[in-house]
Amino acid sequence: MDADFRPTRESTPPPNVSYQQSVLGLAPNVHPLNPFPFILRAAAVYPDKLAVAHPDVTHPAFYTYAVWAQRIQNMAYALIQAGIRPGDRVAVITPNCPLIADAHFGILAARAIVTPVNTRLTPPEVSYILEHSGSKLILIDRDFTHLIENINIPTVVCHDTGRAGDPYESFLSAGRVFSAEKGWTGLEVEPDENAGAVLCYTSGTTGRPKGVLTTLRGSYLAAIGNVVEGQISRESTYLWILPMFHAAGWTYPWANVFACATQITMRSVDYPLIWKHFLNSGVTHYCGAPTVQIGIVNDPAGRPLPRIISAVVAGAAPTAHLISQLEQMGIKPVHVYGLTETGGPFTRCYDQPHWKTLTLEQRAKLMARQGQSSVIAQDTRVVYPPQDENDEEFRDVPKDGRTVGEVLMRGNIIMKEYFRDPEATRKAFQGRHFHSGDLAVWHPDGVIQVVDRSKDLIISGGENASSLAIELELSSHPHALEVSVVARSHPKWGERPMAFVVLRPEHAAKWKDNHGGFATELIRHARTLLPGFACPEWVQIVDELPKSSTGKILKTDLRKAVAKL
Amino acid sequence: MDADFRPTRESTPPPNVSYQQSVLGLAPNVHPLNPFPFILRAAAVYPDKLAVAHPDVTHPAFYTYAVWAQRIQNMAYALIQAGIRPGDRVAVITPNCPLIADAHFGILAARAIVTPVNTRLTPPEVSYILEHSGSKLILIDRDFTHLIENINIPTVVCHDTGRAGDPYESFLSAGRVFSAEKGWTGLEVEPDENAGAVLCYTSGTTGRPKGVLTTLRGSYLAAIGNVVEGQISRESTYLWILPMFHAAGWTYPWANVFACATQITMRSVDYPLIWKHFLNSGVTHYCGAPTVQIGIVNDPAGRPLPRIISAVVAGAAPTAHLISQLEQMGIKPVHVYGLTETGGPFTRCYDQPHWKTLTLEQRAKLMARQGQSSVIAQDTRVVYPPQDENDEEFRDVPKDGRTVGEVLMRGNIIMKEYFRDPEATRKAFQGRHFHSGDLAVWHPDGVIQVVDRSKDLIISGGENASSLAIELELSSHPHALEVSVVARSHPKWGERPMAFVVLRPEHAAKWKDNHGGFATELIRHARTLLPGFACPEWVQIVDELPKSSTGKILKTDLRKAVAKL
Repeated sequence: MDADFRPTRESTPPPNVSYQQSVLGLAPNVHPLNPFPFILRAAAVYPDKLAVAHPDVTHPAFYTYAVWAQRIQNMAYALIQAGIRPGDRVAVITPNCPLIADAHFGILAARAIVTPVNTRLTPPEVSYILEHSGSKLILIDRDFTHLIENINIPTVVCHDTGRAGDPYESFLSAGRVFSAEKGWTGLEVEPDENAGAVLCYTSGTTGRPKGVLTTLRGSYLAAIGNVVEGQISRESTYLWILPMFHAAGWTYPWANVFACATQITMRSVDYPLIWKHFLNSGVTHYCGAPTVQIGIVNDPAGRPLPRIISAVVAGAAPTAHLISQLEQMGIKPVHVYGLTETGGPFTRCYDQPHWKTLTLEQRAKLMARQGQSSVIAQDTRVVYPPQDENDEEFRDVPKDGRTVGEVLMRGNIIMKEYFRDPEATRKAFQGRHFHSGDLAVWHPDGVIQVVDRSKDLIISGGENASSLAIELELSSHPHALEVSVVARSHPKWGERPMAFVVLRPEHAAKWKDNHGGFATELIRHARTLLPGFACPEWVQIVDELPKSSTGKILKTDLRKAVAKL
Repeated sequence: MDADFRPTRESTPPPNVSYQQSVLGLAPNVHPLNPFPFILRAAAVYPDKLAVAHPDVTHPAFYTYAVWAQRIQNMAYALIQAGIRPGDRVAVITPNCPLIADAHFGILAARAIVTPVNTRLTPPEVSYILEHSGSKLILIDRDFTHLIENINIPTVVCHDTGRAGDPYESFLSAGRVFSAEKGWTGLEVEPDENAGAVLCYTSGTTGRPKGVLTTLRGSYLAAIGNVVEGQISRESTYLWILPMFHAAGWTYPWANVFACATQITMRSVDYPLIWKHFLNSGVTHYCGAPTVQIGIVNDPAGRPLPRIISAVVAGAAPTAHLISQLEQMGIKPVHVYGLTETGGPFTRCYDQPHWKTLTLEQRAKLMARQGQSSVIAQDTRVVYPPQDENDEEFRDVPKDGRTVGEVLMRGNIIMKEYFRDPEATRKAFQGRHFHSGDLAVWHPDGVIQVVDRSKDLIISGGENASSLAIELELSSHPHALEVSVVARSHPKWGERPMAFVVLRPEHAAKWKDNHGGFATELIRHARTLLPGFACPEWVQIVDELPKSSTGKILKTDLRKAVAKL
């Protein structure tokens, strides 16, 4: 806590605040599931506990649960005063900071739908999302107003100061006018637990982005699932490295509050700052894609931690090298798998007691698999492709670790729909399962392993080569920092793998003028690990890999480059 | 694990077992909540982990998750073959042993309702419950068949051997016949998450017992809530001291499986045996009423534990002395409060960071309070009595720690109804809240404190004296082991408190021939702690207090005794 920080007068709750909403009309024994009221309970039980810390800015801010709850109440009333009605979409365009943490509660408290927009998109992309979502109001950080210059939607700009004079603070303070009179009781409970919660646009690699609408029920359950899986508690401190706008921060904005933990927000992924918090702020949990984890373990500020930090890794399988580096630092990687459509993490690779006796390499191979349904998820299957669009009888592939099928999921944390796109929704839900578009094998121990996105599979001489499997093996070369593999057309084999490699800084000099030498060595390395059809035909050293706004490697860009070769 | 134990042939799952039920007809994104499938996931993720251990009997049994799941599947098919249909009640009459653990899953898997019967009841009481519930089948332990001698309902007797030849094993094995053919897919998912789960008869102190019917949704959520509150994990070992027939074991039969923990069952509350497991079996969690906790800390086998065990205490507030004794042993007491009607624990007294600086006495006073709604519970209020039967507008009492009102609750873990008793249900749910019948004050920090059951309040000279508050203070006398206080009529004051006291064994001799001396000393002690109207007028030393089958002190019996004085 910063001794200098004082929340605005309007952020202080009244004495004798009651944290109960009106329940008139609700049954005594069936209450609609909704993650927003987590904040009411946290504020009631731990009013003076630090809830949100935002320390690394010109104007740091620190909110206790009682103060934060009041700010959320203020936001709800301010939204209602601004004309927001149940089911309306409210856009949020900001990096990680209190604004977006507030929004995950305040917008739901007003019974509206949180519509986070990726700050790394271009103005036309943002414009498309605002229009398609029909957002009625925009909450935006001062650094991103250029994204909405020609947009004609009411907007509240946040200067991220938490101090009087900030337009966002004025907005909240206006909401407080109704607080003394109406309090939490004045905010109606959303009676439909299957109403929309968050509308997240996927950064589609082809075509327009699709709006993934999650449900309140799914968000409530997914958040609790993440608390149980991560054993997050009131003793925990969660560091926001993952952008909160990415798939609703995998539901951790709610999970941390359900657990009454403390959250620290950082505006950008700044590795020295991350290490500062790891070493000095009592961090216990964070989430991030492997590419971020690589940045963390390779940062010069890194050193062995005094106690274990739990790192949820998703987006791609962590390599043996990365697992080893994380563990040496005292970071325990937890490999999960999911999509925006599955409410974030859906499966988890559960380490088994007998893995302790394995070598790191053996263990890493097992840990790189996507796993089994996590506690709340329900069903994950790998099935043969349907016969046609009307085929709804899926056949599971055998659990042989070899037969490739599509990953299907179902359960409460699956999205409600693609917003305003019944055709895409129908396709995604064919046969009452969600179709992930990911190809996987099913191992005898019940664990699934994604071998590729459907479109990333490389078909070489009739053989299916998994670009992910090739990447995992190439990553084991000691000089390789990051690897991405795509198909390149080949006159004889149809397609052959081409590898793009970022070298580790300490080895880059050696190959600076001898890219061909590295290519020869990497291909030789590959031959010891992979079948011939899966060995890269070409290797290109690059300074960096193209990445999406959420840190995923953009294979579409690599394919475009390959097409020009 | 006992090297000699082998599960029956029929308890071994087939190779390539699939743990998925048929989901035809279910939506991709709304799956009915139900605690039974916890076993499917646990068996899929940790098939070889020890799930249930039953070591302290002539024929010990040890089931891994895979084997236990198969036994549960067998039970479901056996029940269906025996004519059990969705919604039917299946009675279970047994102390803690694998049978009742099986029943909490197998009966739900057959879409029927678990109807546990308290083994300490009399044959006429059992007969009433079997008749009122309309139980279609009885699963009964060999030691309790005398309870149903004249009952004409199909019955399966369990000899608690886990070996071939046991009639219960034959029953399960018959179910296995369908397994190879149908497997889990053949068992239909219960589509209504608000269908009945468990029907528990409360040991009513007046009139006939009432059947509390809980819902599947409530049971699912309550179990998960207990996992989060207790931080139960796959590393945990839960010792069954609380009878599983008591309010569905407070949902821990499911909670432990959701967490993939190990459970140890014991047929009776045997203190030396409890200590054997505390010291040698890796126990991390257990539940019990204060009276059981007193037995544990005072047993000669007790000694400081190598690592903390978490003890959930409910049914009455733990005294400072008990808290101190537990903590000295390495047992961390967690005080919760709830009723059978609230699905077990509903509120929890959350210790606050600043309590660390308090004395034990101060902390114990705070810890003895019933607390605030736990993670899943939803609303707990203390309200003024309704004006009449139609009054549905409750007014909260002020949070002043003084004004007495009734505790009302609502939320998903509240019961569905009193079975076949719409009038009692209507009364209990007046104004869409559940009426606990407990009287409480609301403290400024939002914590409720039960001062009495409505009927236990002592009205002395127009003042309301809380029998619980008097008991707590009298318990602080170093010679008192257990105390119970009831009203006794008084010509001048209307009522005055009378205390019944069990002395600590080490102090009993001193007062053996001087009961009057102890009474004088205890009343003097009370005067330093309580207002005059709350000081006991009479003190009687007794060898033991009358207790119900679930270990609660029977004040009705004490009142009867008092009436004869």
